[in-house]
Amino acid sequence: MTVSRFSTDVYAHRLSAAAAAAAEAGLAGLVITPGYDLRYLVGSRAQTFERLTALVLPATGEPTIVVPRLELAALRESAVTELGVAVRDWVDGQNPYQMVADALGGAGVKTAVTDSMPALHLLPLADLLGVVPVLATDVLRRLRMIKDPAEIDALRKAGAAIDRVHARVPDFLVPGRTEADVAADIAEAIVAEGHSEVAFIIVGSGPNGADPHHECSDRELSAGDIVVVDIGGPYEPGYNSDSTRTYSIGEPDPEVARRYAVLQRAQRAAVAAVRPGVTAEQIDAAARDVLAAEGLAEAFVHRTGHGIGLSVHEEPYIVEGNDLPLEAGMAFSVEPGVYFPGQWGARIEDIVVVTEDGALSVNNQPHDLVVVPVN
Amino acid sequence: MTVSRFSTDVYAHRLSAAAAAAAEAGLAGLVITPGYDLRYLVGSRAQTFERLTALVLPATGEPTIVVPRLELAALRESAVTELGVAVRDWVDGQNPYQMVADALGGAGVKTAVTDSMPALHLLPLADLLGVVPVLATDVLRRLRMIKDPAEIDALRKAGAAIDRVHARVPDFLVPGRTEADVAADIAEAIVAEGHSEVAFIIVGSGPNGADPHHECSDRELSAGDIVVVDIGGPYEPGYNSDSTRTYSIGEPDPEVARRYAVLQRAQRAAVAAVRPGVTAEQIDAAARDVLAAEGLAEAFVHRTGHGIGLSVHEEPYIVEGNDLPLEAGMAFSVEPGVYFPGQWGARIEDIVVVTEDGALSVNNQPHDLVVVPVN
Repeated sequence: MTVSRFSTDVYAHRLSAAAAAAAEAGLAGLVITPGYDLRYLVGSRAQTFERLTALVLPATGEPTIVVPRLELAALRESAVTELGVAVRDWVDGQNPYQMVADALGGAGVKTAVTDSMPALHLLPLADLLGVVPVLATDVLRRLRMIKDPAEIDALRKAGAAIDRVHARVPDFLVPGRTEADVAADIAEAIVAEGHSEVAFIIVGSGPNGADPHHECSDRELSAGDIVVVDIGGPYEPGYNSDSTRTYSIGEPDPEVARRYAVLQRAQRAAVAAVRPGVTAEQIDAAARDVLAAEGLAEAFVHRTGHGIGLSVHEEPYIVEGNDLPLEAGMAFSVEPGVYFPGQWGARIEDIVVVTEDGALSVNNQPHDLVVVPVN
Repeated sequence: MTVSRFSTDVYAHRLSAAAAAAAEAGLAGLVITPGYDLRYLVGSRAQTFERLTALVLPATGEPTIVVPRLELAALRESAVTELGVAVRDWVDGQNPYQMVADALGGAGVKTAVTDSMPALHLLPLADLLGVVPVLATDVLRRLRMIKDPAEIDALRKAGAAIDRVHARVPDFLVPGRTEADVAADIAEAIVAEGHSEVAFIIVGSGPNGADPHHECSDRELSAGDIVVVDIGGPYEPGYNSDSTRTYSIGEPDPEVARRYAVLQRAQRAAVAAVRPGVTAEQIDAAARDVLAAEGLAEAFVHRTGHGIGLSVHEEPYIVEGNDLPLEAGMAFSVEPGVYFPGQWGARIEDIVVVTEDGALSVNNQPHDLVVVPVN
């Protein structure tokens, strides 16, 4: 809970790499308003909306940050000062879009903007530049997808923290308590185990487990319920955990156990397929094929996974149609599930990092259906 | 805490008014992604980012909402179903931007987009339409600024709730406790008094009160401190409170009392100046002139106020240069302050609604410097 950003060297390296990628793409530079890209590049958690804050990263030359004078103090928590980024602060009456254009070297240049830049800023900027920008996603994609050692370390710490929460979940699953009661205990445990906050909590019991987007409800748990628990949150300096385990209150029905065993094999097959050069969609297919072979293709209604880092959902997406070849350093979830509407559902999810030797899982709780004894 | 949106009639009226404003502006329609405009128009709190959700409101004809199939269930909490808005859900592989263009009547049309629409969606949409959209702010400004009776009622309830919190603040201001301790008590009180959550808490004691953007710190309170407490949060169905009172721990120094009395007059003068036809900047000047006449012009370093509603900061801004004439139904803060760096600060803030008879204040705690007795 004490670290709030990485060392300045980490950000210096990222800025250089991003500028080089912008040059490579034939752009004059990148314009990055508050959001994950800004946090990634300079460690700033700025969240301004109505007044423009923007990092201008020219393809060649020094970066500049345009910032409302009132936000200057908050900017100091980032690496901007140590990085030697030029600061251009502004007050009401000045035109910050002109400052951005100046920092890019003038109007008429081709730029890329961060995907979260709101229309409020994008439209005046495009108007002043005279050229509609493109998305910086393509320029920053590879950089953000391939985690550096500091990021992998952060993801592992987050993974260990959520594992500790899952280890405590059986104690919370008492018949007669509601999903919301359980979620409240989990929320407390997520923070107690070291996360800076809760990002999401799904407690899907019985038929609610059959809806992958269910969060939690006032449904009371009872013996015989299968319960999907999908939880996570950011861990300083902001990298997220995300792990799902499925619990059975009392011994499961044999058919539930049979289908769960297939799911377990599907998840394992997908993880085993992970290595550099294999495509994202091949990982998806590895899980799907195991389920299909046992007649469970229709029960698996979502993609196999999503990238994770500062954002809970980011590239690479592990989905049919994504022929991106995996590279060492990519991190994503592997989370097949099976869903039987009106009855029950199950999912197993770990975050894995691609290494030269295959997948490194940051989550290490057992994959078995966790049977919670009923008194 | 039970109401989550207004009656369907309220939204039906807003949709018609927004469509009429779009026609008036010569636009084919509006495209509204999740954010305050969407919440205002149909009561939806959707927060999707990577997958497009967008309300398409043509200047003539029926509205359509484009939504990822996975988000359909969440959309049902809004008024969309009762309003008879056409729903076009989509799954991966379909092009939601094409659906938006179709709902607008084809490409090549002039549209306006909500100010929070991220570049991620705006750039592909602009590309497909072949025309760069403009900001919907101009079209929706008057509609969103002029609160309807349901909104005024919501603001009054929020105001009464934050008044109850201020009434409890003296009990929290005990010498030896930190600003953060006080803020924790206030956070609990904000929710206990009926807000759905905390939006912001400023506890600025002694020299920290001289920074209008200070939040709270580990500084311990002591006898003789002047303490600025600026607090608020949303109250169902989402309208915000925002009120500042200033406290003195023990009897204030006579010079503090003298300056505070001037501030009190300045705040009263600004409120007294509120009526339809007066401009926003005239309200700002009314407060500023009182302070200037007593040599305190330099101590008042920010604008006099901001509009409030679903968002804590929205139009109209009560600031020099804004010649917008006030109209009945506008709601905004009147919050002059005086700041003496390194020493202390003070601010008095109420939310007022413009009526034909002048300002109606939704906050009704006394404006005096609140002296907290020291044992």
